[in-house]
Amino acid sequence: MNTKTSHCKIVDCTVRDGGLVNNWDFSVEFVQHLYKTLNEAGVDYMEIGYKNSPKLLKGAESAGPWRFLDDNFLKQVIPNKGNTKLSALVDIGRVDENDILPRSESLLDLIRVACYIQDVDKALELVQLFHDRGYETTLNIMALSNVMENQLIDAFELIKESVVDVVYIVDSYGSLKPNDYSYLIEKFQHYLPNKRLGIHTHNNMQLAFANTLIAAEKGVELLDASVYGMGRAAGNCNTELLVANLQNAKYNVRPVLDMIEKYMIPLREKEEWGYIIPYMITGMLDEHPRSAMALRDSEDKDKCVDFYDRLTTPEVAHSK
Amino acid sequence: MNTKTSHCKIVDCTVRDGGLVNNWDFSVEFVQHLYKTLNEAGVDYMEIGYKNSPKLLKGAESAGPWRFLDDNFLKQVIPNKGNTKLSALVDIGRVDENDILPRSESLLDLIRVACYIQDVDKALELVQLFHDRGYETTLNIMALSNVMENQLIDAFELIKESVVDVVYIVDSYGSLKPNDYSYLIEKFQHYLPNKRLGIHTHNNMQLAFANTLIAAEKGVELLDASVYGMGRAAGNCNTELLVANLQNAKYNVRPVLDMIEKYMIPLREKEEWGYIIPYMITGMLDEHPRSAMALRDSEDKDKCVDFYDRLTTPEVAHSK
Repeated sequence: MNTKTSHCKIVDCTVRDGGLVNNWDFSVEFVQHLYKTLNEAGVDYMEIGYKNSPKLLKGAESAGPWRFLDDNFLKQVIPNKGNTKLSALVDIGRVDENDILPRSESLLDLIRVACYIQDVDKALELVQLFHDRGYETTLNIMALSNVMENQLIDAFELIKESVVDVVYIVDSYGSLKPNDYSYLIEKFQHYLPNKRLGIHTHNNMQLAFANTLIAAEKGVELLDASVYGMGRAAGNCNTELLVANLQNAKYNVRPVLDMIEKYMIPLREKEEWGYIIPYMITGMLDEHPRSAMALRDSEDKDKCVDFYDRLTTPEVAHSK
Repeated sequence: MNTKTSHCKIVDCTVRDGGLVNNWDFSVEFVQHLYKTLNEAGVDYMEIGYKNSPKLLKGAESAGPWRFLDDNFLKQVIPNKGNTKLSALVDIGRVDENDILPRSESLLDLIRVACYIQDVDKALELVQLFHDRGYETTLNIMALSNVMENQLIDAFELIKESVVDVVYIVDSYGSLKPNDYSYLIEKFQHYLPNKRLGIHTHNNMQLAFANTLIAAEKGVELLDASVYGMGRAAGNCNTELLVANLQNAKYNVRPVLDMIEKYMIPLREKEEWGYIIPYMITGMLDEHPRSAMALRDSEDKDKCVDFYDRLTTPEVAHSK
């Protein structure tokens, strides 16, 4: 109601982060319908996949095309670009710079670089490259809940002097609470007064939307989300909740509801993401969801107590 | 992490509010196991049902015994009471005061009176009765998102002078955002400095836990929740999330996980509650979920867009 969020932009990550759920097995029709949806809904960016190189990643052959975006393919998928800008994510050490066309020859507008705190220097080299080729850039620092203050302050020194447009606070494990986010956002704002900020949340403890809303009100500008929350493990902040609740006349929730009805509800019957107890447990313990993902792939998928005991028994937990 | 929540007490409403989902069709074994769970988890109160009179309600015969708690029956169900106190809810006009034993003869510790703003006077008469019979009392003002400020301030005048122990802020429609709650809590604290506060949330927009956490940090003391979120329509704040995240050494999440594994996951296969799009829609529109509940009971249960259009088309919406 009384939110001050007109500065915000939504970055829909359904295809990119949702691809981690179904190995990027989205049809062209799905992606085209999603792009149309996001345009009609007024969503600012669509992250349509990864721009990593298949040569630099194992198991690449089985993945859908959204894992290794090709610029020519993209032009076939989106022959008529609308107002929604296109974004791609890259990981350190997995991108071939020869794959990156000048922005004028690509449909992509924004390239985001994901990294852990110790790789911020390498990430900023990539950011410089993409910036020089004309793209908007973001630096997405993952797993911030596991970063010590001194490491963060060292990273700020590098970031402050870089060309990066937006710096992301990424809660990879879904462990951060509103207070934690407020603390981090104020720290980022203090050390990086010349940078815009972004937020990427996970829904392990049902806090993804709340944390995003609170970040928006504190001045964070780019807000990651995905339709019906589709994303790895517990998933992300829901695009429909942001579109419905951010105070900005350009947003319209109706097309997002249509996408959910036509595509996401049937897809959720086949693929799993969301608030599921093993993901809640890794969230509350502030650790990577990989153990919970393995559990959900096994016959013991609902054995919550055994799982909790394994993660909290000292001799086992120490080897995490 | 840095939450200041040691003053808080959890009121588990699984049986009472969850009964709105399954017509209180919980076995004695289920309720006994839940009571054991809540004791082991350190949960402060268990709301074990309604204390309304079957003579004053239609359709009473089909409901399970938790809808019309009988003190003798309760003593059979809970032969050995632990640290977890027992609570019951009553509605205005549906309680027969002859059913209310003195507290010394009952297992109940707390009786809560739910009402809309225009019935605060009647509710406070009941509160006085229960107070005189020795019970702790709360006044649960429902649908606060639809209450005008002047009505609220009139109600505060009555409440201030009453014997009620705790006053609840109830977000019946699941439409309140963290900012809205902050505003209401500050208002209640300002006008009712002599009363303790409570909060009851609904999860239509995935904000139930976040709003409860924020309320706790602002000094609200009684926090309603239910295991696995079970409650009418979108459900409530999840007990497991509060137990896992409130900063209080007495809470232990492991027994709650066990209850979820053994009882709640199988129950959720049969009964429906939680974040479901029609409930999100009534939440964002700030209205009662009854239209969404009717939709979910029909063949059109996933027709989100038609439903949204119906609720937002002026000539239809006006008749709500």
